[in-house]
Amino acid sequence: VARRRPFGEFDGIDVLRQRLTTPSNEVAVVGIGDDGAVLRRPSGELVVSVDASIEGVHFDLAWLSLTQAAERSFHAAVSDLAAMGADALASVCAIELPPHADRRAFAEIGKGQARAAGLLGCPIVGGNVTKGSGFGFTTTVFGTVPRGRSILRSGAEPGEEVWLSHQAGWAGLGLHLLQQRLATRRGRAWDFAPHLGRWTHAAIRAWTAPRAKLRESATWRRKASALIDTSDSLASEANHVAKASGVLMVLDHALLTSTHRPVTRAAIELGLDPLTVVLYGGEDYALLGTGPEKNRPVGALTVGRVERGRGAVLLVEGKHQPLRPGFDHLQVAR
Amino acid sequence: VARRRPFGEFDGIDVLRQRLTTPSNEVAVVGIGDDGAVLRRPSGELVVSVDASIEGVHFDLAWLSLTQAAERSFHAAVSDLAAMGADALASVCAIELPPHADRRAFAEIGKGQARAAGLLGCPIVGGNVTKGSGFGFTTTVFGTVPRGRSILRSGAEPGEEVWLSHQAGWAGLGLHLLQQRLATRRGRAWDFAPHLGRWTHAAIRAWTAPRAKLRESATWRRKASALIDTSDSLASEANHVAKASGVLMVLDHALLTSTHRPVTRAAIELGLDPLTVVLYGGEDYALLGTGPEKNRPVGALTVGRVERGRGAVLLVEGKHQPLRPGFDHLQVAR
Repeated sequence: VARRRPFGEFDGIDVLRQRLTTPSNEVAVVGIGDDGAVLRRPSGELVVSVDASIEGVHFDLAWLSLTQAAERSFHAAVSDLAAMGADALASVCAIELPPHADRRAFAEIGKGQARAAGLLGCPIVGGNVTKGSGFGFTTTVFGTVPRGRSILRSGAEPGEEVWLSHQAGWAGLGLHLLQQRLATRRGRAWDFAPHLGRWTHAAIRAWTAPRAKLRESATWRRKASALIDTSDSLASEANHVAKASGVLMVLDHALLTSTHRPVTRAAIELGLDPLTVVLYGGEDYALLGTGPEKNRPVGALTVGRVERGRGAVLLVEGKHQPLRPGFDHLQVAR
Repeated sequence: VARRRPFGEFDGIDVLRQRLTTPSNEVAVVGIGDDGAVLRRPSGELVVSVDASIEGVHFDLAWLSLTQAAERSFHAAVSDLAAMGADALASVCAIELPPHADRRAFAEIGKGQARAAGLLGCPIVGGNVTKGSGFGFTTTVFGTVPRGRSILRSGAEPGEEVWLSHQAGWAGLGLHLLQQRLATRRGRAWDFAPHLGRWTHAAIRAWTAPRAKLRESATWRRKASALIDTSDSLASEANHVAKASGVLMVLDHALLTSTHRPVTRAAIELGLDPLTVVLYGGEDYALLGTGPEKNRPVGALTVGRVERGRGAVLLVEGKHQPLRPGFDHLQVAR
């Protein structure tokens, strides 16, 4: 009887390769399978970014299927291209798997990555597979911008408005539901604590299935002076823009409250401080931009103003309260 | 008394940034510090590759300092650019650190990465820092080749020679010394089992401090029809070339023996089968190439011949023995 060879790295790569359709050769001359991929000469400047999503740190497999975890990690990585005002070009994915990973694990990961890559038009042209202590996805994304047209954190000017592409805090609420076991996964469905309202679906979706805002970015980049995505928290990203631009970012309590009613109501239902949820919840992957009022993109939520000064503050009844940077992956216990 | 804030992600990034000198703006318009780096439009096609080096899987901190581990991982990643015949352009590094990592850990990692990036002319323009269960380095490298000039695995032709840039097996011997505790690290020095010859230094250096063969590649790419690096094993890489090119790769026992005397003698001293060490030892990061005899690069070791057929074999006294692909990161217990 022939001894069955254990499922290994090369088998896994084959399974992944079947899932990841070869990108059109408009992008890649050489795709998965050689020592590196070869991409046609980009049409402009090249934007590159890398993002990691690690089991036990960034996600828990009680909360996400492997397919969802892979898909989520891909959107998180591509969100940085949106934050630069870039068009997606291609990506490479490094995967860590625990020793017990089997064919099905590879297939699920490939499915999630392929779905995200397809939706975002960001083909996976290469990768790496290695054993680890758990599952991990490290995704490097490449994008293009016309020369000199990337939108940096450093472009904010006093007198401009501060915009959000969508309400902050939903993903933070979703994470809270998961951590407090107020939401439990049952296959593809969710059981919620019975006393909670219908908003729970939105909160869970925000955390489990964020979408990189590439399409919004294609509009915003023609309007915004500075751009960043809220991967950490609104407070944290506002501080980043303030520091890079040498300005004071003033988030306005009244504007935040009026634009964030649904999320603040949900926070109150959970007994949480609504402003903390909006300002310090992470992983919304919203676009945060600044620009002149006349440029305000359709659908943008105006949440503050850029002023002369340094740092980020919250304006409450005419007074400035400091906004600590907040949210740090190495410090936050998950 | 002010409470000292624990050392976190942003502090670590600051320490890394100090180590990683900003690359000349000939390469990067925007370096570390925004959502992504922005590189000038590459001069030709873009080669991309990603490689991961994980504590407990690829290395053990009893064998390498953090600086060495970071340096080694960077060379391993850039080796794939050499294997494509590409010039190094830039890189991004995703780092995982255990919760106890402190300022010194970041400084050591930055030192190793900066040293390798400087030596190889491959500036680090961005990265990602995250908590993990141990240390891990996932490095994505970008290179350039003139249009259509990447050297693939698929170009080998019957009648050509098979070349190695340097002796295979040394790194495998080094790993054996480490695993069997025949070599133990004492700061920057090594203690070796007293009965072993002076070759132990070469073996340890081969495993702990491999060098990406970018300079050799700049010559080989004008000579070779197919190119790969021996990150796994000679047997494994020969099989890859055979499969991609649709040829029979014949490694010649007599040629291997005559070109690998020092490493085979060392193997015998350890009681190991010398041919197994040469064929199945991993992580030498040598260039393995094929090409017509008249193109043989200066210093190349000729170890076999390309013939019509499929697969990879060892030629011993006129007979072909199959060469199993061998070496698989997910299967090999370290």
